[in-house]
Formats: sequence, C-alpha cells, structure tokens
Amino acid sequence: MYKVNKDRMEEKIKAFSKFGDLGNGGITRLSFSPAALEARAEFKKRAEALGMTVETDDIANMYATLPGSEPGLKRIVMGSHVDSVRSGGNYDGIYGVLSSLEAVETIVTENIPHRHPLTVMVWTNEEGARFEPAMMCSGIVLGKFTKEKMCEVVERDGTVTFGEALAASGFVGDEKNRINKDDYVCYFEPHIEQGPVLEEEGLEIGVVEGVVGMVNYDIILEGQSAHAGTTPQSYRKDALRAASKTIMDLWDKLGALDSKLVFTTGQILCKPNVHTIVPNYVKFTLDSRHQDMGVLAQVVEIIENLPKDVYGCKLSYEEHWGRKTIQFNDQMIGYIRKAAEDLGLSNKGMYSGAGHDAQYVSEMLPAVMIFIPSKDGLSHTVVEYSSPDQLANGADVLLNAVLAADAEM
Amino acid sequence: MYKVNKDRMEEKIKAFSKFGDLGNGGITRLSFSPAALEARAEFKKRAEALGMTVETDDIANMYATLPGSEPGLKRIVMGSHVDSVRSGGNYDGIYGVLSSLEAVETIVTENIPHRHPLTVMVWTNEEGARFEPAMMCSGIVLGKFTKEKMCEVVERDGTVTFGEALAASGFVGDEKNRINKDDYVCYFEPHIEQGPVLEEEGLEIGVVEGVVGMVNYDIILEGQSAHAGTTPQSYRKDALRAASKTIMDLWDKLGALDSKLVFTTGQILCKPNVHTIVPNYVKFTLDSRHQDMGVLAQVVEIIENLPKDVYGCKLSYEEHWGRKTIQFNDQMIGYIRKAAEDLGLSNKGMYSGAGHDAQYVSEMLPAVMIFIPSKDGLSHTVVEYSSPDQLANGADVLLNAVLAADAEM
Repeated sequence: MYKVNKDRMEEKIKAFSKFGDLGNGGITRLSFSPAALEARAEFKKRAEALGMTVETDDIANMYATLPGSEPGLKRIVMGSHVDSVRSGGNYDGIYGVLSSLEAVETIVTENIPHRHPLTVMVWTNEEGARFEPAMMCSGIVLGKFTKEKMCEVVERDGTVTFGEALAASGFVGDEKNRINKDDYVCYFEPHIEQGPVLEEEGLEIGVVEGVVGMVNYDIILEGQSAHAGTTPQSYRKDALRAASKTIMDLWDKLGALDSKLVFTTGQILCKPNVHTIVPNYVKFTLDSRHQDMGVLAQVVEIIENLPKDVYGCKLSYEEHWGRKTIQFNDQMIGYIRKAAEDLGLSNKGMYSGAGHDAQYVSEMLPAVMIFIPSKDGLSHTVVEYSSPDQLANGADVLLNAVLAADAEM
Repeated sequence: MYKVNKDRMEEKIKAFSKFGDLGNGGITRLSFSPAALEARAEFKKRAEALGMTVETDDIANMYATLPGSEPGLKRIVMGSHVDSVRSGGNYDGIYGVLSSLEAVETIVTENIPHRHPLTVMVWTNEEGARFEPAMMCSGIVLGKFTKEKMCEVVERDGTVTFGEALAASGFVGDEKNRINKDDYVCYFEPHIEQGPVLEEEGLEIGVVEGVVGMVNYDIILEGQSAHAGTTPQSYRKDALRAASKTIMDLWDKLGALDSKLVFTTGQILCKPNVHTIVPNYVKFTLDSRHQDMGVLAQVVEIIENLPKDVYGCKLSYEEHWGRKTIQFNDQMIGYIRKAAEDLGLSNKGMYSGAGHDAQYVSEMLPAVMIFIPSKDGLSHTVVEYSSPDQLANGADVLLNAVLAADAEM
C-alpha cells in the first residue's frame, strides 16, 4: 500500500489557512474574494510545480492534470472546493483539494506508475455563502441551473453579481474544458464528515455510499395576538405555545421512525415578537433527511397528519423543496472500502447528510466520497478540526483507491 | 342619577379619530407628532368652550379646570392620554380624556352643582411608542424617572430627543403646575379594558381595584449548533427543542397555580436561526402578572426551580424587572361601584393587567380606574372597539362617582 507524506499534507493545510485568515483559527474565503483568488493562485503554482497542466472552464472551475502513461485514456478526477462560509474553518472543501494534490505529489515524487491522466479539481462556489445557491457550478455543469441565471445572482450584503465577480477573477477559461463523461472516467471527493459519528464511534474512515434524500417544510401556527396583562390564559390562542407543542410532537413522532432519520427545526419566526403581546403567528422550518425515501415518505405523512388545531391555533404547512437520495457507484465504493481495509483503517459505510458537488457529478460519472472525522462533529465554524493523522489517513485511502481505479477502470 | 349625552360622547370619539387617521379605522398618534399636537389643540379648544382654564406643566401634561362653587377647595382630577401606539385604535387613552370632558360638559350644560374645581388631564407620552418608557410623564411627576434623563431619550426610528420634541411642542408650561397632593383631592381614570373578561362575562363596567404586580424574565437555553444533515438526533443539543419543552413545562406548572394568573412567552430569539443548522441558543421572555404578590412569588420559585439541563442544553434565566401590585383607594373604588350599581350597570371588581398613569398617581392621591368592555378583548390595534352604549356607560359612572367624591371628600 502506498502512503502520502503526513507532514507535507499538514503543511498544505497550514499554508492555505493563510488565505482569509481571521486570526482566530478560522477563515472567511468567499467565492472570488481576494482570499479565494490567492488560494486559487497558490493551487495553480503548486500543481504546475508537480508538472501538472492547469486549465479552467467558463465558470472558473479549475482542472490541474498530470499526464498518465497510456495516451488516449480518460482522466481520473478528484477534488473539492476552496471557498468557505463566513467564519468557516480550514478543512471543509479545501481538504478535498489538498488531499488530492498530496496524492498526486506522492505519485510524482515516488514515481508511482499510473495509466490515466490524473486531474485535481477546484469547484467554483460550492458553499454559496456569497452567491446563492450552494453547489452552484457543479449544478451548472450538470444542468441544474443555467449559467445565464446564475451570472445574475447578486452577492449577499452587496451589489456585485456572480457574473461580474467571475469575469474579474482572472480564472475564466473555455466552456469545452468543463468536466464531461467523454473525457473523464470517475470522480473522487475526500471531505470532512461534518458530523460526530466517526469520532464518537472511534472510526478513521467513512466510506460514503451516497447522499441522503431530504424534505423541507415550513410549519405555520396562526392564533390571535392579545395583551399579556389583560387576557386570561383560557382565552388565549398563543401561536408560540402551539409551535412548542408541535415541535415536541414532531420529536415524539419522527424520533420513533428510524434511528438514522435526522430532522431539524432550525429557524423560527414569531410575530409580533413583543414580550407583552401573545404571539399570533409562528412559522418554523422542518428539514428532514434519510437515505431511504420510504422513511421520508413516512415523515411527509406525519407532517400531513399533524392536528390542524393546536390550542386554538390553525396549523398549516408548506412544502419547500426536497431531493431524492443519491447512491454513489458500487465499484467506486468498493475501491474506498478496500483501500481503507488494506491500510488497516477502521471504517464504516455511511451516507452524507450534507450536499456536496459529488452528488451532481454522480449523475454523469461513477463518483464516491471519503470522509475523515470532524472534531466534535463541527463544521462551518472556526473551530472545525481534523488531526494530521486523520488528514493523512483520508489522503492514503484516496491515493490507493485512485490507483485501484487507474488499474481496473 | 345623572347621565351624560351618549351622542355627544360618540361625536367626541369620532372627532378625535381624525387626528392620525390611518384610513383603516385606526390611528397612529405618537407623542408630539403633528397628529398628537392637533388632538391637544382640539382638546384645549373644547375645554375652553366649556369655560375651563387650560394650563400645562413643564413636561406638557395638560390640565383643563372648571371652577367649583366653594373657593379654596382642592381640585378633583380625571383623565388619561391622547397619544397612541403605532397602528393603534380610537379608544385606548383618548376615551379617558373624552369621557372626562363629556362628564364636565354634562355638568356645565345641565348646571349640576359641584363644590370642587374639576380638572380634566392629558398625560404626555403614556404609550412610550415613540419615546420609551411608557407612562413617562406620570413617572417623572412621581419621581420614577428624572426629567433630565427622559429629555435625552431618542425617538425610535429617528434622531429627535424627547426634550427637543417637548420644546418644539408649544405645550410647555410651568413646573409648579404639575399635579400634586396639595392642590388635588383625588384622581379618576376611565379606560377600555384591553382584555376580554367584561365582554365574555356580559358585564358593562369593570370596577378597577388595582393594577396587578408583574415579573419579567428572560429564559435562556444554550446547546450546540450542528449540521442538520450530519448530526444524529441522539448527539444533538438543540436549544429550540429545549425551549419548546420549557415553554410546555411553564404552561403546565404556572397554569396549575391560579386561574387569575396570566403569563406570556411573547418574544423568542433563536441563533443562528438557519434552517440547516441545529439552534445553539434560544432566549425567550416570560411576563407574568397577578394581583397577589404571593402567587407571583410562586411563579418566581417555579422559574428558579426549572431544570438546569434540558435535553443537554443549559438553562439559565435573567430577571428583567417587576412591579408590585398597586391597590387603588377603597373609598374611590366604593364611588365607582356605587355609581355603577345605582345606574343599574352590571359590574365586577377586577385588576388591571396593563399599566396606566393611575398606578403612579395612586402613590400621591386617592386614585381609581373605570373599565368598559373591549370588543374581542383587543387593544393596541386598529380594530379596537367599544360601542356607543359602552362609552356612555363609563362616562355615566365617572360623572356620578366624581359628584359623589365632590360631595364627600
């Protein structure tokens, strides 16, 4: 089994942590910000130093390619993104790019034979923190969104459009460079887990079998506003009391469905939201995810059968959006599992609860992801952390899985 | 028994509803706004037409006084306020001023003998909707706030201070004109109930025996933010779930204390309040009121004994402020009850859940309030309503109670 250089892997993470450094251990590296452009330039410089050729497509996705030994073969591609959320950490996204670069650096420095060209990718605007939505540019490539419409998206807290920032980035290339199924064999994406399961279970590698399906609802309670001092409790139609009861009911009912089901009431709006007035309107969100769409159908049934009157308040709901469960490619999953096993790394099959570019790519190419543990399950925060050993483990698995695909696909 | 003129009472309400008219049945008449100044000018004009002398004090409280038959007697005073909340109605406050004016108009037009001078008051800035706090100017008179500090208060949504608006109002008089116990006998304040009790119980008059005491708390739940898709339910410390449980517990425990206890969780703050993130921080308010301070002590005990850990979240609380129950003067309460009984108006003794200028005045002079029903218990809304009969009933009670006080006090 091949192994990457752990110190070199750690150095890469540390080097890129300067781009957007907040001085508190975290970064803000929004799409096309100066910090993100510096990270892209550094990626290009390091890739070229390894003998890779760097191209970009028309939406600034970056492709750094190392030639293989057999001319005419398609490319094996691996990567992730360099943009972050506001006050994010040094692992989400960038780890996928830098572990891929480290795998290639190991192949180059150790002269490991490989038949296919190996491409390391940087996806533009995965987080959607400056320009919504998330996974914008894999979405454009896979036809989920049109480039025209996305170019009109205005940044949050500002006036610049995605199209303007793209044009000014210096990373615009040719549309024909976009990743496609004629020129590429398969896609690997290493990532931090962003959840607590691997750490809690003492495991080193997550073999990601897919991305869970999800449903999103708004649940609305409508009561009657009233004066806090003058309205006896028995006359009240208190929308926040009704919402509290509904949240407790959802935990009871959804919690009984399946231990792998997750559901979140993350956002709440209360009107008039004044301490001396009984709330007349409360809306809260329900996000629920599971790999089995049958379980999600039960979630929907529970929502549809919530009582329509809760303490005199009218309950209604609005479906927002959803996605079906994505299954990664069995052969690719097999490469990840075998690499982990052969490296002696404890592992389990799991589903990603978060969305990733890999889920769109999987519609075009055999795709798979590798998870490494996240300390305390935290991500999208400055305290996001994975240890040097964990970083190296994931890169080791990637390296060996890529070489297995190179040999067999 | 004397009776006011119902049509004239109704005309007064209609005439004043022009000042700040929103065109939807309601008004916005913030302190010292053009609409409020118009209402003050109209009050002055109407009072002078009745032979009253209009004075103001240094904080623009207005005093319109009709001489009595015995020189040297102190004044009997009645009134309320002309300012409103944003999108308020045509009854809260203004009814107290106009029913007082109608009582005096009846005395003047019917030549009803009275010994004491009779003063109708307009309090400045009762609502506190433009300049906080509420009951500002009765508070200044009673030493709750200093005039200097209040003059520095900046308006909500603007830059003008209370002191600047006061100086520009044209209604500034002499500090020696402030209501005081040397020159005044007693204080009456008619008001809409702002709650549903009188209407629900089919009663015509509320004999207000006091203003309930209250406690105000913030209750805080601190958990751990986590990704909605990647964090199993069993690992979560969801602050909104914990807040929902706490709100349900409060309803169970406080609801069992006493049927006259009111409690309200009117305001909620949730962080980060994003639909894909488990909330790590929720703060909600608890306002609770009861006439018996012993019951409020039990409320405080329940809050202090809430579990400190709710679903893994830390519960804490902060006491905001409170007030003790105010008891109105027994003799004054007797005048109101007897007037209602003698007029054949159904009535009950009750406590005000809301604060009123009368509660401060009661520390200086024998004071009392009269409530009339509020349609659907609503106030501080454009649909606030009391019928012409209800308006006249309250003014009739006021008129006869004032005359009883005039005869006996």
